[in-house]
Amino acid sequence: MKIVQVAFEGFTDVDVHLPWDLLNRVRREDWRVRIVADRPVVRSQTGLALTVHGGLEEIADADAVLFASGPATRALCKDAAFLASLHLDPSRQLIGSMCSGALILAAKGLLEGIPATTYPTARKDLEAFGVTVLERPFVRHGNIATAAGCLAAQYLAGWVIETLLDARTRELVLRSVQPVGEGFGFDDADAIRSLYAPESLSR
Amino acid sequence: MKIVQVAFEGFTDVDVHLPWDLLNRVRREDWRVRIVADRPVVRSQTGLALTVHGGLEEIADADAVLFASGPATRALCKDAAFLASLHLDPSRQLIGSMCSGALILAAKGLLEGIPATTYPTARKDLEAFGVTVLERPFVRHGNIATAAGCLAAQYLAGWVIETLLDARTRELVLRSVQPVGEGFGFDDADAIRSLYAPESLSR
Repeated sequence: MKIVQVAFEGFTDVDVHLPWDLLNRVRREDWRVRIVADRPVVRSQTGLALTVHGGLEEIADADAVLFASGPATRALCKDAAFLASLHLDPSRQLIGSMCSGALILAAKGLLEGIPATTYPTARKDLEAFGVTVLERPFVRHGNIATAAGCLAAQYLAGWVIETLLDARTRELVLRSVQPVGEGFGFDDADAIRSLYAPESLSR
Repeated sequence: MKIVQVAFEGFTDVDVHLPWDLLNRVRREDWRVRIVADRPVVRSQTGLALTVHGGLEEIADADAVLFASGPATRALCKDAAFLASLHLDPSRQLIGSMCSGALILAAKGLLEGIPATTYPTARKDLEAFGVTVLERPFVRHGNIATAAGCLAAQYLAGWVIETLLDARTRELVLRSVQPVGEGFGFDDADAIRSLYAPESLSR
């Protein structure tokens, strides 16, 4: 199973790094997470350099593709060359977005006839594509999902994990990042250690 | 005001990137956030390279110093050279940690006589320093605070923002990352835009 996160120049830091961290808590030999972009190094909105794992061509054979967010999405959703380089197939791929990343899904025609969510500052831009925009943290319709508000990355990554693997793995991964006492407590140390043993999950 | 985040080889991704993203939502000319380490580039637990802003000497003149977490803390808290390079002064600095980063605070003698929290898998290591470890997401005593569970980064970053600035700025920053409808809703688009206008916060 291959999950691809699409980043770009000016991405919102946590909208890439929170899904990335969550998805990497799945330890299976057949589970690969890759960050891709249209260039070898992209800088986040705050100026941190991120050397990505590959180019946009990696999207084509992914099982799940998640788009990042950031002010740059307003230009990218009108960038014909960028859009043409995204080889997406919603019949066999899970496709999702964080916050304003929904604009890229809309530009690719993936939100035709289905509702979606986005960050408040991108709502009008998304509506301009004719999309019905719901004020919800997570909206899923078949293989397409949109999440809004950075911490809703939990819903997006959780959806990918549960759909490609199972609900138990999703639950363990999400519990592992909650504040202590809200997810895992002190009595769960052994459970957490086994979570991170190689190949421990979903087997 | 200068806030320094201390990273190291093998850091837990989101325990650096979530506080970083939150702290960078404060837009003031006199507010600087820097990630430092004992080398120019550190790799996260998942293998992402992070080019840091400076070395550990930057700790000395910081107003707040936040330690990252990761398996490496078990060795770092026994590494005399590393510990000697941390010039901390709890009488004039806020000093905090994510998850197992509390082991470094303990090794520096900062948790003597005060309780702390840590990630479940590091509890026994922290108790071995003689620290009273509480099963809570956030424990503060004067200028020293420990947070546990990745998403408790909100409490840690929020504490720094409120203490160095004010409660309103803390609230706006934390609301801005909540899932849509739980923090900001669609009617808050203008409020969010003003949040990110230069110099808009805390003025």
